[in-house]
Amino acid sequence: MSYASVVDVLTGKHPVGTTVTVRGWVRTRRDSKAGISFINLHDGSCFDALQAVVANTLSNYSSEVQKLTTGCAVAITGEVAASQGQGQSFELQASDLQVYGWVEDPDTYPMAPKRHSMEYLREYAHLRPRTNITGAVMRVRNCLAQAVHRFFHEHGYLWVSTPIITASDCEGAGEMFRVSTLDLMNLPHKDDGSIDFSQDFFGKEAYLTVSGQLNAETYACALSKVYTFGPTFRAENSNTSRHLSEFWMVEPEVAFADLDQVAGLAEAMLKYVFKAVMEERADDLAFFNQRIDNTVLERLQKMVSSDFVHMDYTDAIDILQNCGEQFEYPVSWGVDLQSEHERYLAEKHVGGPVILKNYPRDIKAFYMRQNDDGKTVAAMDVLAPGIGEIIGGSAREERLDVLDKRLDEMQLPKAEYQWYRDLRRYGTVPHAGFGLGFERLVAYVTGVQNIRDVIPFPRTPKNASY
Amino acid sequence: MSYASVVDVLTGKHPVGTTVTVRGWVRTRRDSKAGISFINLHDGSCFDALQAVVANTLSNYSSEVQKLTTGCAVAITGEVAASQGQGQSFELQASDLQVYGWVEDPDTYPMAPKRHSMEYLREYAHLRPRTNITGAVMRVRNCLAQAVHRFFHEHGYLWVSTPIITASDCEGAGEMFRVSTLDLMNLPHKDDGSIDFSQDFFGKEAYLTVSGQLNAETYACALSKVYTFGPTFRAENSNTSRHLSEFWMVEPEVAFADLDQVAGLAEAMLKYVFKAVMEERADDLAFFNQRIDNTVLERLQKMVSSDFVHMDYTDAIDILQNCGEQFEYPVSWGVDLQSEHERYLAEKHVGGPVILKNYPRDIKAFYMRQNDDGKTVAAMDVLAPGIGEIIGGSAREERLDVLDKRLDEMQLPKAEYQWYRDLRRYGTVPHAGFGLGFERLVAYVTGVQNIRDVIPFPRTPKNASY
Repeated sequence: MSYASVVDVLTGKHPVGTTVTVRGWVRTRRDSKAGISFINLHDGSCFDALQAVVANTLSNYSSEVQKLTTGCAVAITGEVAASQGQGQSFELQASDLQVYGWVEDPDTYPMAPKRHSMEYLREYAHLRPRTNITGAVMRVRNCLAQAVHRFFHEHGYLWVSTPIITASDCEGAGEMFRVSTLDLMNLPHKDDGSIDFSQDFFGKEAYLTVSGQLNAETYACALSKVYTFGPTFRAENSNTSRHLSEFWMVEPEVAFADLDQVAGLAEAMLKYVFKAVMEERADDLAFFNQRIDNTVLERLQKMVSSDFVHMDYTDAIDILQNCGEQFEYPVSWGVDLQSEHERYLAEKHVGGPVILKNYPRDIKAFYMRQNDDGKTVAAMDVLAPGIGEIIGGSAREERLDVLDKRLDEMQLPKAEYQWYRDLRRYGTVPHAGFGLGFERLVAYVTGVQNIRDVIPFPRTPKNASY
Repeated sequence: MSYASVVDVLTGKHPVGTTVTVRGWVRTRRDSKAGISFINLHDGSCFDALQAVVANTLSNYSSEVQKLTTGCAVAITGEVAASQGQGQSFELQASDLQVYGWVEDPDTYPMAPKRHSMEYLREYAHLRPRTNITGAVMRVRNCLAQAVHRFFHEHGYLWVSTPIITASDCEGAGEMFRVSTLDLMNLPHKDDGSIDFSQDFFGKEAYLTVSGQLNAETYACALSKVYTFGPTFRAENSNTSRHLSEFWMVEPEVAFADLDQVAGLAEAMLKYVFKAVMEERADDLAFFNQRIDNTVLERLQKMVSSDFVHMDYTDAIDILQNCGEQFEYPVSWGVDLQSEHERYLAEKHVGGPVILKNYPRDIKAFYMRQNDDGKTVAAMDVLAPGIGEIIGGSAREERLDVLDKRLDEMQLPKAEYQWYRDLRRYGTVPHAGFGLGFERLVAYVTGVQNIRDVIPFPRTPKNASY
C-alpha cells in the first residue's frame, strides 16, 4: 500500500488495479439507494476532487461513512479504477476508510458547502484555503512565483533580499509604518521635547520599506543583474480593491541596460510567467474562466502572442485628447494618467499590451534618468487590457551632477543619499529596472476582482488579524 | 558585435575568434613594459574576472586605459582568444575600450584593492558586493534560495506568503517589533490612561512576525503541502555572530506527516540544496575553502553522503553525561542543549549530522505534539558538524483537548488562538513541519563566521542603515 495524491491518481500515475491510500478532506458525500456512497476528496494538489466509491460492505459504513460531512479529514484506501462517470478518468474503489478528524457541529461549520461571498470568505482567512476558489488562487499564485524565480535564474539574475526594516525613506514620498520597541507609556524625550530615537532599538527612526529598488541598485552596480522578490509596505489609508498595506514586489535591476532593454525584459518576463501558468495550471484557469471572468484565458493568450506596442507619453496624450472619448479626468500634457486613460489606450486604441514611455519629469521620482529634451524622464509603464498599469520602471539617473541637481530641486537631503550617490562616484554605469506588484499580477491572471483575495492574509486599514 | 558576460567567455560559450563586448568593473590593471596592459574585468556572473589584453595601439591608451583603477566601469570589445597565462582558458584581445564611469579619487575609494576586514566591509554595505568575498557569498546565497524553491516545487509544495505584520503574538514568547503609524508626540489615550490602539492603523496593536508557522498550518490543513520563505524578526538585544533582527526563514508544513517524515524531509532538502551549490557554485566554494574555511567542501560532501543519525534526546543526555567531556554548561535530563553539547554529539560522538528527537515538553512551545510518555514532545533538531543546530521542527498537536489543556497550563489566552483551534475543530489532521534559518544555512555553506556578512543589509541592534 502506498500513499498517493489526488493529482497523481487523476492523471493516471497509478495504473488501474493498483491499491493506494489517498488522504484529504471531504468536499461532498452522496449516498445512493443501492448502499453506495460517493465521496469527493480534495487534498489541494489540483483543482478537481477525487471520487471514491464506498460500499456498505465496509465495517464502519453506517457508523462513520454515512456521517461524513464537508471538511472531514479521511484516509481512503482502495483500488484505482476507470471512472464510469463523466469528467474524470479515474476513481477509487474503496476498501477501507479511516477518519482523522470530524467537523464539530457541521451545521455551523463556516465552510459548509454553499456559495459564499468573497467578503464572507475574507472573514475566515484561516479556513478559506479549503474552498475551490481560494485553493485555485493559491495554486496559481505559487505557479507564478515559481515562474518568476525560474525566469530570472535562467537569465543569470541573482535574487537579492533587500532590507524590510530601513532607516532611510529614500523615495522621499510614501507613507510608512514606524518600527519601534519604545515603550509608548514611557517615551524617552530629548531636551527640546522631541522623542529621543537614539534610545530606540535601531538607534534612530526606522520604518518598513516601500521598495527595495535603491538597495537593489547597489547590488546591480556590482553584480550586474539582480532582482528582489519580497514584501513591501504602504501606510496609506486606501480602502480599495487594488491596495494592500503589505504586498509582494518583484524588482529587477539591470546594469548597462537602458529603458528599451528593461521594457523588453518586462515583456519577456510577463510572457514567460503567463505561459507557465497556462501550461501548469490549466485546471484552475478553466475554473476562473468559467466562474469568475470569462475573458481570463483569452487575455492571457493575447498577452503571450502579442508584440507589446511601444508608445511615447506625448503621443498618448495626443491620442487621448483627440479620440472623442469622455473621460472623468481631463487629459493634458503633464498630467499623470488615470486608470481610465490607461485602459482606453490598451483596450480600445491598441487592443493589446502597451508600453508607455518618457513621462514628464515633474510627475516622476528623483532617481529617474532625464532625457535630453529637459522635460521628460526615461520612465515606462506597462499597460495591460483589463487592468491598466501592471509594471512601472525607468532608467536610473547615473550621472552624479544631474542627480545632485535633481535632489536639490526637489529639496531632498543629499546627506541622506550619500550611499546612493556613491554608486555614481565610483564606477557609475547606466542601469534600469522595474517593479511588478505581485498581487496585481495574481489578480490579473485569475480575474479575481479584489486584491485582498489573492494573498493569504491581507493587511489593510483596521485589519491585521491572524 | 554582441554583448557577453564574463562567465560565458570563460566557459567557452563564445568560440575563439569571435568578437564580443564585455561590460563590467576593473578589478586590477597591470602594465607591461612592452606597452600592453592586462585588465581584469568582473561583472558578478562568476567568481573569476576576465583578463583583457589591451595594447597601446588603442587611441585612448594613454589618455584613458593607463588611468584605469579598481572599480572603474568599462566596456571592452575584442576577440576571444586562448589564454596564454595560467588558470584561465580564454581571454580577450581588446580592440576597443570605452569608459562608463571613473572612480572619483582612487586613493580614498573605500573598496581599493587591499585586504579589508569583514568589519570594515560591513561599514560599506552598499559597496561590498564589489569585493570577491561578498560577491561569492551572494551568488551562493542566490543558488541556495533557488534550490530551496526548486526542491519544494518539484515535491508538490506550494509557496505560501504568510503575513509580515501581525496582530497576534502566537508563539507567546519572543520580543517583537511594534508596527504603528501613531504620532508619538500626540498619542491617543483611553480613559484609563492606556494607549488607545483602536486609533492606530490596524485598529489594534500590531507587530512584525517572528514565524510564519501558525499561519502556514492553516494552509497545510487545506492544501496539504506548503512552505514559507520570507523575512522574520526578533527584537532581541543580541549582539552575536549568530543573530540578526531581520532574517529569512524557510518553513515547510506538511499535513498527514509525523515527526520522522519531516525529519526525512529536512534531510532530503539539505542534501538537495548542498548538491545544487556544489554543482552550480564550484568556483565560489573553492574560494571559500581556500581562503575562509578549509573544511567547507569536506563537510558539504559529508552531509550529502551521510545518512543522518536519529537519536532520542534522552539517549543524548546519557551520552553527554558519560562521555567524560568537560562542558561549560552541565547536562541533565530536562535542560535545553547548548551549542557545545550539540557540536559534541555531531562532531565527536557521531562524526556526522544528527537528528535529535523527543525533547522534554517543558522546554518546548505549546503547539508541539505530546508523546504518550507524558513528558516529552515530538520535536526535533537537526545538528550539523561545525555549526550545531541548523533546523528545528516538530509534529503539531492536532488533538483539540490536548492542545487546550496545554494552552491552559501555559496560561495562554485561548480566545487569541481561536482560529488556530478551529483547525482542530474542523477536520483536524496529524501534521508536522520545521524551520530553517536561511542565513545560518548560507553561513554554514560558505564558512563565513558572522551571519551579518551573508545578508545584503544586516539589521542588528543600533543598525538599520541603508
